[in-house]
Amino acid sequence: MDDLRSRFGRRLRLGMIGGGPGSWIGRMHQGAAILDGWWDVVSGVWSSDPGRSRAAGPLLGVDAGRSYGDVAEMLARERERPDGIDAVAIMTPNDTHYPYAVAALDAGLDVICDKPITHDLAQARDLVTRVGASGRLYAITHGYAAYPMTRYASRLVREGGIGGLRFVQVEYIQAGMATRLEDGPQTNRLRWLLDSRRSGLAQVMSAIGCHAQHLACFVTGRNVARVCAEAGAVVPGRQLIDHVSALLEFEGGCVGTFTAIQAAAGSENDIRLRVYGEHGMVEWSHRECSYLRVAMLGEPVRLVARGDPGLPPDIIAGGRAPRGHPEGLLQAFANIYGEVAQERMARAVGGEVPSFPYPRIEDGAHSMAFIEACLASKAAGRWVDVTR
Amino acid sequence: MDDLRSRFGRRLRLGMIGGGPGSWIGRMHQGAAILDGWWDVVSGVWSSDPGRSRAAGPLLGVDAGRSYGDVAEMLARERERPDGIDAVAIMTPNDTHYPYAVAALDAGLDVICDKPITHDLAQARDLVTRVGASGRLYAITHGYAAYPMTRYASRLVREGGIGGLRFVQVEYIQAGMATRLEDGPQTNRLRWLLDSRRSGLAQVMSAIGCHAQHLACFVTGRNVARVCAEAGAVVPGRQLIDHVSALLEFEGGCVGTFTAIQAAAGSENDIRLRVYGEHGMVEWSHRECSYLRVAMLGEPVRLVARGDPGLPPDIIAGGRAPRGHPEGLLQAFANIYGEVAQERMARAVGGEVPSFPYPRIEDGAHSMAFIEACLASKAAGRWVDVTR
Amino acid sequence: MDDLRSRFGRRLRLGMIGGGPGSWIGRMHQGAAILDGWWDVVSGVWSSDPGRSRAAGPLLGVDAGRSYGDVAEMLARERERPDGIDAVAIMTPNDTHYPYAVAALDAGLDVICDKPITHDLAQARDLVTRVGASGRLYAITHGYAAYPMTRYASRLVREGGIGGLRFVQVEYIQAGMATRLEDGPQTNRLRWLLDSRRSGLAQVMSAIGCHAQHLACFVTGRNVARVCAEAGAVVPGRQLIDHVSALLEFEGGCVGTFTAIQAAAGSENDIRLRVYGEHGMVEWSHRECSYLRVAMLGEPVRLVARGDPGLPPDIIAGGRAPRGHPEGLLQAFANIYGEVAQERMARAVGGEVPSFPYPRIEDGAHSMAFIEACLASKAAGRWVDVTR
Amino acid sequence: MDDLRSRFGRRLRLGMIGGGPGSWIGRMHQGAAILDGWWDVVSGVWSSDPGRSRAAGPLLGVDAGRSYGDVAEMLARERERPDGIDAVAIMTPNDTHYPYAVAALDAGLDVICDKPITHDLAQARDLVTRVGASGRLYAITHGYAAYPMTRYASRLVREGGIGGLRFVQVEYIQAGMATRLEDGPQTNRLRWLLDSRRSGLAQVMSAIGCHAQHLACFVTGRNVARVCAEAGAVVPGRQLIDHVSALLEFEGGCVGTFTAIQAAAGSENDIRLRVYGEHGMVEWSHRECSYLRVAMLGEPVRLVARGDPGLPPDIIAGGRAPRGHPEGLLQAFANIYGEVAQERMARAVGGEVPSFPYPRIEDGAHSMAFIEACLASKAAGRWVDVTR
Repeated sequence: MDDLRSRFGRRLRLGMIGGGPGSWIGRMHQGAAILDGWWDVVSGVWSSDPGRSRAAGPLLGVDAGRSYGDVAEMLARERERPDGIDAVAIMTPNDTHYPYAVAALDAGLDVICDKPITHDLAQARDLVTRVGASGRLYAITHGYAAYPMTRYASRLVREGGIGGLRFVQVEYIQAGMATRLEDGPQTNRLRWLLDSRRSGLAQVMSAIGCHAQHLACFVTGRNVARVCAEAGAVVPGRQLIDHVSALLEFEGGCVGTFTAIQAAAGSENDIRLRVYGEHGMVEWSHRECSYLRVAMLGEPVRLVARGDPGLPPDIIAGGRAPRGHPEGLLQAFANIYGEVAQERMARAVGGEVPSFPYPRIEDGAHSMAFIEACLASKAAGRWVDVTR
Repeated sequence: MDDLRSRFGRRLRLGMIGGGPGSWIGRMHQGAAILDGWWDVVSGVWSSDPGRSRAAGPLLGVDAGRSYGDVAEMLARERERPDGIDAVAIMTPNDTHYPYAVAALDAGLDVICDKPITHDLAQARDLVTRVGASGRLYAITHGYAAYPMTRYASRLVREGGIGGLRFVQVEYIQAGMATRLEDGPQTNRLRWLLDSRRSGLAQVMSAIGCHAQHLACFVTGRNVARVCAEAGAVVPGRQLIDHVSALLEFEGGCVGTFTAIQAAAGSENDIRLRVYGEHGMVEWSHRECSYLRVAMLGEPVRLVARGDPGLPPDIIAGGRAPRGHPEGLLQAFANIYGEVAQERMARAVGGEVPSFPYPRIEDGAHSMAFIEACLASKAAGRWVDVTR
Repeated sequence: MDDLRSRFGRRLRLGMIGGGPGSWIGRMHQGAAILDGWWDVVSGVWSSDPGRSRAAGPLLGVDAGRSYGDVAEMLARERERPDGIDAVAIMTPNDTHYPYAVAALDAGLDVICDKPITHDLAQARDLVTRVGASGRLYAITHGYAAYPMTRYASRLVREGGIGGLRFVQVEYIQAGMATRLEDGPQTNRLRWLLDSRRSGLAQVMSAIGCHAQHLACFVTGRNVARVCAEAGAVVPGRQLIDHVSALLEFEGGCVGTFTAIQAAAGSENDIRLRVYGEHGMVEWSHRECSYLRVAMLGEPVRLVARGDPGLPPDIIAGGRAPRGHPEGLLQAFANIYGEVAQERMARAVGGEVPSFPYPRIEDGAHSMAFIEACLASKAAGRWVDVTR
Repeated sequence: MDDLRSRFGRRLRLGMIGGGPGSWIGRMHQGAAILDGWWDVVSGVWSSDPGRSRAAGPLLGVDAGRSYGDVAEMLARERERPDGIDAVAIMTPNDTHYPYAVAALDAGLDVICDKPITHDLAQARDLVTRVGASGRLYAITHGYAAYPMTRYASRLVREGGIGGLRFVQVEYIQAGMATRLEDGPQTNRLRWLLDSRRSGLAQVMSAIGCHAQHLACFVTGRNVARVCAEAGAVVPGRQLIDHVSALLEFEGGCVGTFTAIQAAAGSENDIRLRVYGEHGMVEWSHRECSYLRVAMLGEPVRLVARGDPGLPPDIIAGGRAPRGHPEGLLQAFANIYGEVAQERMARAVGGEVPSFPYPRIEDGAHSMAFIEACLASKAAGRWVDVTR
């Protein structure tokens, strides 16, 4: 790793799109980018208000001269610099993910983007094509799939460690929309969140549901083939979709259940996955992100912990502190940032480019297909195929 | 309680149907019946083999003279005795629950029966009629709904403690049929379990699924109105149904998910329920049966424990040892046995008959309607109404 | 087991001393005795008030004719009966354990007794001699050491499963005396509890501390050789000892810590043990009595559960329901009652008498030596030897 | 916060002493310093080997020109720069903490130092004097006391939330020295760790024990007044002290227990604290760092979580992501780094200087007094006073 950085000769330069002062996800991206020394955050557009955007940079440790009024300006001006940005990180309102990603790709930049990648499947397919044509990297910050223990789960399951798959349970439960936010003061953030033209076809899927679907697909190594879904608002009078639950059939035939709800009053934010196979099962919960419960038929349950000496070295390397010292989502995000950097550097210096498990554009497109299928199923009241 | 027993003048006399030596559920019923001194187990039919049945009694502490060769003999002979049995407890193969219950009712006895109550909904409706006409008591040993903490959950939810209902998750996960039992030695027990004419329309629902459905209905105080279900065998080549998962709509409009699977290799037997409402949620897991997690919006999670001094007295009375001393399913069963006894005694001695929350024939009939609806939904590939 | 019972020809007959109506520990003993069909509870002395004692029997399911006014009467009258009691179970105030046990032994009866066995070590040594001379059985209801998982821990540790012992942590924490009971209404129970001449040299040790010490000794297979203790009242103004914490040195050299406190406001009753060895450790908590955490160096933590198929058959036999169905202290008590019965029956019918792990008189004597050593250490302000 | 940074006009500049490539604690310090934008890491001495030290900087993102061969060189050269460092972070072998801190203070720099602060109490007292005379800031990275939930525990306990203190249990358990490291290859790190002249009077106390002692003192707001300790090696043949357990008496009279062991084979690294008071107790474990268990007498247990809306705003501000998103030791360290920066900036710009709870030199001196008292107690076999 250090050798790769040395051969490349410098850190990569990141421009942020979104995540201004007061944004926790902004600090998450920024901290993750710099944590391991792969990136410097040198530029940004921090607000849709040009004046506020330009003013924000210095508060976030970025030179005023590289804090721009809008994305077009950033891309143009950075391109002119000898030390211009290598990539952008996008964490703006959902409806802008697609156009900003397109613009960045067009500008020859790599893209690290928050979910959902686009408004709908058509846009997503277009983006797949564009990324392929551009030769640029495109990563999605599904942090839950970048923990050492979810990656170990994926490795174990895909390599047959629990035998043929039999059943999957995945859920993302949250209280973020448990109250009538519609009736409170309408902040900028609420304004776009509550407008489905901006937040996505199904708000709960844009916000959390696609994380759960992606995690299940990542760990099983399979896409969802068919779905039968309930979708709607559990909060009375709400126009947005704050809940989707579904029966799943994965490619290859394994069945399962899916639940995403943002209106679970009192519930702590948590994403949980169980995958059952012929010989045993694995269970992971975000709340205990450093542990994977592995239960094999006829054996005591094992609590595999981040850093356990029997884990594969690359899994262990996904943690930074010894077993027993808690880590969290920041480090998972940092794993994604580090892998994108390493792939970029490896391409640049030549030689073998490692294959990293971070979430890519194709994963994002499957999420959009899944969301559309859930809505189609709800409308039809029956099972529907997920578009391949 | 002691006063009631004194006024009644004696313990009640129970005859067991099924639960011979080696049967853990037999010991559970027997232990639960005698634990609190409400019942004596004085008679029984312990096997479908008359010789083995008669021999079993003394091993189980019952006089040889009251260990009978079959149910008809027991009912006839006990009726002749001045100290004949007051009730039967039925824990035989599923297909016999209905005829034995009918016979016992016809003999003027109260019935305590394992689930499922019948083979199908038609039988269940007939049994509802028969119980009503007989004036006898009929209780189902859904022990999970007889824990102090599930009863407190039910009280809390029904009294509006978490506000209007929004979402329900219930599951019963087990590994009992994770392997190809079909290929192993065919014990008597396996022979009827694996024969759906005997074990029921859906084996997994007979064995565990109806417990989960009942628990959800008990805690919410609502029946299931509509269901959209997947049902089948996750073990390749299996003819029986070892898995049902479903989307639920309860009466009154609350939605939810349901999962029952007997082929979850490695998984420990567990039944789990979460009910979300407008203001908060409750969560219970059988594995931690003495605790109820209550999470209200904006407040720290509370772990309400069996015996907590703030609980209602009748909930506290459902436990026997101080908070912190584990109890289990035996005590939950004993709560059911005790309540049936008290209701019977109260009727006999006159005066007010308390209203006990133990599961009754109507609850069992709803379970049968639910099972049939799941299968109908699976066949149709869409939502179906649950017969009222 | 059934064979032994058949050869013996009947159940054993138990007389209860203490545990009248309203006593949870009384119901625990009674339920444990009858749960598995080894004993009938046929006689008793339920109160120090002869009239109340005689009246209590029928409330507890015992014939009025065998409910006696005092222990002497019970022993005399039962001796005259052809169907007299085989043993007594003692659960009276602490100062009466010794004289009642002596009387029962003198009457040729086996004894099952609550801790502490005596007031002091001198009495305990006398009782060791008496039990030995009598040829009768004497069991102490240290239920915590009768769980399948503590017994498995003991087996594992004693057989070297974690290598040479290095460190032990044991504690029993409770809130039972967190408030100034001294200032409230003085019930009969409080009257003797708060009188150290009756409740013992150190109230907290009589009530819970000796359970913790015994559990540590049982699992390690070692007595305590030396102790350095703090002992006193954490509740201001209290005359009794409500807290003892101590540094331990076990025979053979392993060190450890011990804590018993009855005044831990807010704390749920719990007894916890960790034993560390050269190669790994075991951890058990009463709150999760059906699980043993086994953590070996360099391996994932294993949660060994009651009923896990890899456990030794006799350990599995200590549970009654399949893995995942909670059991509790009642079943642990029942294990002790069952073993005493089996030992008694095996002696009676001849042939091999199995060696059961239930707590015996010598264990109780070591507890009394330990208590005296703690107090001596507190007085001296330094380490003292525990009398062998 | 942003206002303070703006008024100060720049980030602070940090020089690292120790924590070279491959050091996890080095990455922890570096990541914590930069996470929130308070510090830039601009300089360092990364190894006791001057050549390796100079080479390490670029690997860690620091200019070669500011990577020095030794501490004296760094202090001298940085002093000459207009943009020289403001502070040093010390994470070298234990015996160098004191001289490096002295040198940095003499050079007019603030100091952030790993524990233990010195070799013994005499050095510690000297350092207290020096810090006082210098007017510089001195912080100790006891990260465990910088979590939102331990800080909330401290606030709650000190403000009387659980009433008068009654009992304290604190422990730090680890397997780091469970094997005979003495017999393996002697790395540089092992060489000083295993040499008590370098690692400290009691290795286990230098490594982990002082963290536990500090946490207990921080949460209770009290120093330890008297101690009675066992100290030694639980690994046979070991010359170093790998275990200390002790009975404690805090100032003001509350008693407690303390355990630190580095040779707990199989045990996951964990630090745990329980504080019991008149009305309830608090419990915290590092393994679940974002939660505080608060159990008040007569009430259900509450699991207070980082981010719970009822927490004080400054406690909430110690977390960065919403409740339910795991954070860990990095963020706790970052809290310390941020507070030192804010105190420094506030002093510089004038106006009110907030009082931050980060661990200071006086806390470190008490730790050294505690360690010496434990050893004195072990030598004497009795209670000793902790030097004030």
